[in-house]
Amino acid sequence: MRIAVYPGGFDPVTNGHLDLITRMTHLFDRVVVAVVKGRDKGSLFTAQERVELVQTACKHLPSVEVESFDGLMVEYATRKGAVAVVRGIRAISDFESEFDQALMNRKMAPNLESVYLMAIQENLFISATRIREVSRLGYDVAELVPANVRTALRKKYGQE
Amino acid sequence: MRIAVYPGGFDPVTNGHLDLITRMTHLFDRVVVAVVKGRDKGSLFTAQERVELVQTACKHLPSVEVESFDGLMVEYATRKGAVAVVRGIRAISDFESEFDQALMNRKMAPNLESVYLMAIQENLFISATRIREVSRLGYDVAELVPANVRTALRKKYGQE
Amino acid sequence: MRIAVYPGGFDPVTNGHLDLITRMTHLFDRVVVAVVKGRDKGSLFTAQERVELVQTACKHLPSVEVESFDGLMVEYATRKGAVAVVRGIRAISDFESEFDQALMNRKMAPNLESVYLMAIQENLFISATRIREVSRLGYDVAELVPANVRTALRKKYGQE
Amino acid sequence: MRIAVYPGGFDPVTNGHLDLITRMTHLFDRVVVAVVKGRDKGSLFTAQERVELVQTACKHLPSVEVESFDGLMVEYATRKGAVAVVRGIRAISDFESEFDQALMNRKMAPNLESVYLMAIQENLFISATRIREVSRLGYDVAELVPANVRTALRKKYGQE
Amino acid sequence: MRIAVYPGGFDPVTNGHLDLITRMTHLFDRVVVAVVKGRDKGSLFTAQERVELVQTACKHLPSVEVESFDGLMVEYATRKGAVAVVRGIRAISDFESEFDQALMNRKMAPNLESVYLMAIQENLFISATRIREVSRLGYDVAELVPANVRTALRKKYGQE
Amino acid sequence: MRIAVYPGGFDPVTNGHLDLITRMTHLFDRVVVAVVKGRDKGSLFTAQERVELVQTACKHLPSVEVESFDGLMVEYATRKGAVAVVRGIRAISDFESEFDQALMNRKMAPNLESVYLMAIQENLFISATRIREVSRLGYDVAELVPANVRTALRKKYGQE
Repeated sequence: MRIAVYPGGFDPVTNGHLDLITRMTHLFDRVVVAVVKGRDKGSLFTAQERVELVQTACKHLPSVEVESFDGLMVEYATRKGAVAVVRGIRAISDFESEFDQALMNRKMAPNLESVYLMAIQENLFISATRIREVSRLGYDVAELVPANVRTALRKKYGQE
Repeated sequence: MRIAVYPGGFDPVTNGHLDLITRMTHLFDRVVVAVVKGRDKGSLFTAQERVELVQTACKHLPSVEVESFDGLMVEYATRKGAVAVVRGIRAISDFESEFDQALMNRKMAPNLESVYLMAIQENLFISATRIREVSRLGYDVAELVPANVRTALRKKYGQE
Repeated sequence: MRIAVYPGGFDPVTNGHLDLITRMTHLFDRVVVAVVKGRDKGSLFTAQERVELVQTACKHLPSVEVESFDGLMVEYATRKGAVAVVRGIRAISDFESEFDQALMNRKMAPNLESVYLMAIQENLFISATRIREVSRLGYDVAELVPANVRTALRKKYGQE
Repeated sequence: MRIAVYPGGFDPVTNGHLDLITRMTHLFDRVVVAVVKGRDKGSLFTAQERVELVQTACKHLPSVEVESFDGLMVEYATRKGAVAVVRGIRAISDFESEFDQALMNRKMAPNLESVYLMAIQENLFISATRIREVSRLGYDVAELVPANVRTALRKKYGQE
Repeated sequence: MRIAVYPGGFDPVTNGHLDLITRMTHLFDRVVVAVVKGRDKGSLFTAQERVELVQTACKHLPSVEVESFDGLMVEYATRKGAVAVVRGIRAISDFESEFDQALMNRKMAPNLESVYLMAIQENLFISATRIREVSRLGYDVAELVPANVRTALRKKYGQE
Repeated sequence: MRIAVYPGGFDPVTNGHLDLITRMTHLFDRVVVAVVKGRDKGSLFTAQERVELVQTACKHLPSVEVESFDGLMVEYATRKGAVAVVRGIRAISDFESEFDQALMNRKMAPNLESVYLMAIQENLFISATRIREVSRLGYDVAELVPANVRTALRKKYGQE
């Protein structure tokens, strides 16, 4: 059984993330979505909320597991028995920081493969940061995030 | 069984390619190295030679198959029953052209995933083009290509 | 009256080009699509054919004029009375060469503005080069080019 | 009448901005310089001060209007009746974030065009951030900003 | 005698920095490592600590001098009688910000040359930021920093 | 005595090259401008002509020597006793290919340093390729190349 870990902030999970998670389930037997706890300070949703938002959005995908973690990601992934860490890439600038990270990860865990998928064009501009930004200003993000996330965002921003 | 196709010119196969192929065997059940025939004109080695050089270099990897192909790569990959096309990335400029290609491939074959692996740092500067260039000028590429490729290069350039 | 020149190879014109031309008509009173003659050698369609393909595809846009030209583009644009040269950008690498060109153009014609529009996401992967490539291999580009261009491509490649 | 909106922080307006605004007046009938209010916290000058600095610097350009705004920029631009949002580009990294933003804007306001102009070479290195930085350290920015901005900066940093 | 200034945060100095400093000693008669004081707030080590960590790590290099400074770097470098400011480049994104800075520096001090060296491949992923990050999480950075820095990091993070 | 080699096509030498050569003379005791012979096919000027054009343009710089070479550049530089190979950078895309080359050179000649200088802004858009292009179309490049190169270009293109 091949396990992949998909780490990230997921603050909140977007349609872009969901598309990537779905595609990962075609490539791996098990996909662990790993919500970074450490980013709690300054995040819109708590780690617990972020985990639940992903879980609800992925409940139709039986091979997907959602957890939060802290500490070194490569150590977490190794503990989970993962063969690969998967990252989505939307732009060149993503690529640069990923490249650095990939070299460092390989130094720390030579047997853990870093695998990259590209965001599909419909999702190229959907970053969680931008979702929070336009959502806060009252723009309806119904087409950009899962329904449960849209509801959570409206609640968070007192738009209900 | 998950099959991945790894298309390329392989003119000739380098240690960078071999490292990627080896890593792919950890991620997929079968890896098809697909040598692009069309690039014959202008290539140093014929498609047939390029296939044989990869085959010899990969003979210790039982799940690797080597073939040449022409026509649309996505059609070829679909015929082979592949779930993924794998590409190695060494630099930002690689990424740009890959990005374009990925969007086009997805348009043509939505169920074929494009997957990217990064070249490890020891291999960042080993492109087939550079190998041909320095090899032609007499530099010994023993550390950069498999032994059988080194022999073939020396023969090709009349250095034996 | 503000005139814009949109120079390029248009070998052949794609839906990506057409989208940009349409958007230019909202910004300028007159749009001159300027087909570069010099690229004839090595081009799939002759300059004359390329002009006609754009003309047919743009016949519903009354403010668009199509011509071929050779020589220095900035001199041509100045002769046409243009206030701006418009360029479409699809990727970072486009940007780099455009940047260089913009600085050189400004040196040569300080009053001619270089204006950039970005390709919409549906068209990000549609370059004329790729159209020729996949079209030659038999892929039906009906969704990527105007109908008259599709017909011309099939004829050119003997696919009718 | 074609109106363009030029949004930004303008903290403070530089010669680079002024050059772009001047060039915009050749392309559009009316140019609205739109100072982002939201960036007040952490900004050196208040939104009101930033508006006044631009107004003074542009008083020789009758088709230029200066305002501050908050909320979604595309909604503001639509309210102003703009056909285009204009952005200046100085470097590749500018381009990347602009690209993202352009795709998102198009999603939110399909009829509002994003138009890019490139900074001329003399202004390539003049960012408002760098102006604040070197100005705070006592460097005389007389050649890099309008006279009224130089005075305001010296006052702000107690250098008068 | 040609003097080069090598400015930076050095929070803390890494093997990547040390490799660059060593290479600089082959190119210049004297190398001044200039620790930026201003970055004290938010830095892990104080300016004084950072200077001492570099000094200890460079004590085998007689032509290297280590100091902290604040104010305009080009003024500092000019005071030191430097012919060049040297910067290490690890990635494209480094290059972009360096490019901007180089143009600004040239404006401020035309006779001070900006010189770039590239990080060797073993050090491509060693940034001070990443060192602090993984070190804080308990990863042993023995292969990535000088011995005295490793000790200082463990002490700082209470890992002794 | 520190010697630097500055290799390139110089087809023809431009004001951008000359500015870099002049700056190198401040950094090194001797600068060897090394004209790549191999690029003769397809070049506008022969290697011999290119050497003479550089020599004439640099005759006021006593520490500059001009030669042509073929074979491996690192071997040539080592034979010349160089401590550094200097390269000018005008854009990100230059940087990418330089980066690759630097890693390969270091593999082949660990003691030969690769040093980068950035083109000053006035010269950012002056590439030899563009000079040939606009010069062939009749544009007067008097401000972009040394006087002797301008004369040679006009002669070459029958414009005298």
